[in-house]
Amino acid sequence: MNKNNLTLLTDFYELTMAGGYLETGLAHEIAYFDLFFRRVPDGGGFAILAGVEQMVEYLKGLRFEAEDIAFLRAKGGFSEAFLKYLEGFEFSCDVWAPPEGTPIFPGEPLVTVRGPLLQAQYVESMLLLLINHQSLIATKANRIVRAAQGRAVMEFGTRRAHGSTAAILGARAAYIAGCVGTACTVCERDFGITALGTMAHSWVQVFPSEYDAFTAYAKLYPDNCTLLVDTYSVLKSGVPNAIRVFKEQKPRKMGIRIDSGDAAYLSKHARAMLDEAGLTDCKIAISNSLDEWLIRDILLQGAPIDSFGVGERLITAASDPVFGGVYKMAGIERDGEIVPKMKISENVEKITNPGFKKLYRLFDKGTGRMIADVITLAHEAAPAGDDYVIFDPSYTWKRKRLSGFVAKDLRMQIFDKGRCVYSPPPIDDVRAYCLEQIGTLWEETIRFENPQPYYVDLSQELWALRSDLIEQYQAD
Amino acid sequence: MNKNNLTLLTDFYELTMAGGYLETGLAHEIAYFDLFFRRVPDGGGFAILAGVEQMVEYLKGLRFEAEDIAFLRAKGGFSEAFLKYLEGFEFSCDVWAPPEGTPIFPGEPLVTVRGPLLQAQYVESMLLLLINHQSLIATKANRIVRAAQGRAVMEFGTRRAHGSTAAILGARAAYIAGCVGTACTVCERDFGITALGTMAHSWVQVFPSEYDAFTAYAKLYPDNCTLLVDTYSVLKSGVPNAIRVFKEQKPRKMGIRIDSGDAAYLSKHARAMLDEAGLTDCKIAISNSLDEWLIRDILLQGAPIDSFGVGERLITAASDPVFGGVYKMAGIERDGEIVPKMKISENVEKITNPGFKKLYRLFDKGTGRMIADVITLAHEAAPAGDDYVIFDPSYTWKRKRLSGFVAKDLRMQIFDKGRCVYSPPPIDDVRAYCLEQIGTLWEETIRFENPQPYYVDLSQELWALRSDLIEQYQAD
Repeated sequence: MNKNNLTLLTDFYELTMAGGYLETGLAHEIAYFDLFFRRVPDGGGFAILAGVEQMVEYLKGLRFEAEDIAFLRAKGGFSEAFLKYLEGFEFSCDVWAPPEGTPIFPGEPLVTVRGPLLQAQYVESMLLLLINHQSLIATKANRIVRAAQGRAVMEFGTRRAHGSTAAILGARAAYIAGCVGTACTVCERDFGITALGTMAHSWVQVFPSEYDAFTAYAKLYPDNCTLLVDTYSVLKSGVPNAIRVFKEQKPRKMGIRIDSGDAAYLSKHARAMLDEAGLTDCKIAISNSLDEWLIRDILLQGAPIDSFGVGERLITAASDPVFGGVYKMAGIERDGEIVPKMKISENVEKITNPGFKKLYRLFDKGTGRMIADVITLAHEAAPAGDDYVIFDPSYTWKRKRLSGFVAKDLRMQIFDKGRCVYSPPPIDDVRAYCLEQIGTLWEETIRFENPQPYYVDLSQELWALRSDLIEQYQAD
Repeated sequence: MNKNNLTLLTDFYELTMAGGYLETGLAHEIAYFDLFFRRVPDGGGFAILAGVEQMVEYLKGLRFEAEDIAFLRAKGGFSEAFLKYLEGFEFSCDVWAPPEGTPIFPGEPLVTVRGPLLQAQYVESMLLLLINHQSLIATKANRIVRAAQGRAVMEFGTRRAHGSTAAILGARAAYIAGCVGTACTVCERDFGITALGTMAHSWVQVFPSEYDAFTAYAKLYPDNCTLLVDTYSVLKSGVPNAIRVFKEQKPRKMGIRIDSGDAAYLSKHARAMLDEAGLTDCKIAISNSLDEWLIRDILLQGAPIDSFGVGERLITAASDPVFGGVYKMAGIERDGEIVPKMKISENVEKITNPGFKKLYRLFDKGTGRMIADVITLAHEAAPAGDDYVIFDPSYTWKRKRLSGFVAKDLRMQIFDKGRCVYSPPPIDDVRAYCLEQIGTLWEETIRFENPQPYYVDLSQELWALRSDLIEQYQAD
């Protein structure tokens, strides 16, 4: 078994449906699916799209291996014609998505897949898995990075991640969203994300004394000598021993890390001791069950901390560990026309937007800030002009006239009839773009508590189509 | 880059320490490390150990590839002697662990690694990652399975898992803990766990009518015809169409799935309609943001549901998504003697147990139920006799005299000087063992709210060693 072949990492119903589409002659009809999400985790004002590069890799490599076919044949229930089809499966859809690192909002079509129904349906599970996971972690990590107000945040969560991919791609997403590096070494090998770390308590325990342990480390690693000072007592032993060793060994880069106890109290006293010893260059790092709330509180108390190592609560997005992206059919071509499809629900928020759509982001010409996003049907002209009216799709009397904006088509085509027409940018460019774009959000949308909802409105034509379809379904 | 080579999936400090141990001559001293956890997620009374098979695979395959060495050389900071050592790295430790699926309790040494300090330290990150992840999901999944009171629970979380390993190994852990199957197809290919699923809403939407969609499905898959009945209206359209199609097509296995709306209300009405139509064999499945609390409530309301598809809240352990296993040094051999080591902390619960230990589980001879676990030093005799006293390690006046028990050494040796001496059992045996062992717990320990803490006590000798060391540290 080749455990890297993830073609069958899919909900089984994708296969029963695929088989059914082939048997009923629907497989090759051209369908439109949108991937979107409905709620920002933690009640935040925006999320961050991540996982686009992994989605591209997945789609490029999508094929059924002999072992997959053999497995499905043995499992039973599928026709030989269908298994034959899978053997020759070649992804031939069009795919659009915003650049990785884009701030995103509920209800927006993020990824759109257009192509043969069987194929466009089949990729659902894996596209959701990839985008949901990294968007979740990027969104959480950026909250923590914002709480740290410019201080460094290091991703330290490998040991509490939900499996190896969660550790690796979680660290990747955290970096995109502003972390400065990760403890996860393989992320530097595979993605060029700086791997960080110096010592655990066991290093200190195994030497005859804390002083001996620190001395040995400083001699070996003078370029990055961060000493863990809480194995015995931070203020009585750890910091005094660190000061002594820093003065004796004179490492080029000095730091201490505090991994237990009250971070505010200990960091203030440690800072005073270090400064008194003339070690004003020595940095203070803390770690130990941190998150955005604790970091904010500790900094409000004036703790002189230079960097934060954040583990389990970041890598699992512990406060709200589900990113609820969904993948819904928006239309199907019949006789060359797009027949729009939507899912009706008792719950207004769960009603989908029908048709083949475009997503525009309107930036203020003067300030460069984001004003609103507008979803249109694909054939419509881009929002423009000095008197463009947007309105809330649920509360249509909430209207706003816009002027002085530039409308940006937010999504790029990344596959053209199955051919990849996009190269994922270097990760440092993704990170820079992400942080720059977050800089164009209003503070009101960024704050943690009750952020002001960002406008995501529909064009008049899309709104009318949606209303017509709702009426039509209700009449049935 | 070989993305399957996970040797560098480790916190970077494992490497700086490894390098340091080699340079300082400590690398080959024989060290003892224990993996244990401190708190059962969700305030539960016990957890379930999972991930042992993956730990075995990881340790068997542990070697540094040329690309790893090249990466570390390029990153800098490591000596050529160390890189040379890594090139020839061969795991040569002893490892003990309980069988996968064992109910486990806070403070118990689960995995113990004994061997050269450099090696025993190096495996920390990955052992924690593997055991923490699957133990978390197994523990959560079993809560959900218990809430379902014998009804089937299916794992449906792939799309919301934290990456591909979280989906696959999470489904594996859920199965061990009692789920009957998973939507994650690749789990059947790779682990033999039954993959389940029939259709999404898009199947229903793409046909001219719900009736047509159901008919097509029933014709194609008569052996397992579960129809999704909530695309339009469960009671007005979904169930009547399902009944019509079941009567016309007569599939061998019939079911309906409800994925939105009030599960209790809808299932009761659907059951009545099905029964009235003579379809008493038709099963009712529900899905949609379920967890143990919702399932318990729905069943308390008398909902006639046969099976539950549980997604995001199981696969992310959403209510408490961190399993806090840690890996701490317990001793180091010097001149042929074990020098016990422990980590002192202000926080009593964080004080570790020193020395090389054994873990016994005492079962009542009469009832077969678990009475208590006892941690001893490895050289001690197993608990025995008809007047064996156990006592609480924190509240030593809490004593209990035991008689009529059998003491079972809970851990097997799985590596002997680096050689694997253990074959992981078939997953169905692991699952059967897990459920059987949970059956030996008292109801008081199993309940969700304020379960009675299970006894995990220390032998008199271990307790005395621990007390001596605490005094010794405090005197320093």
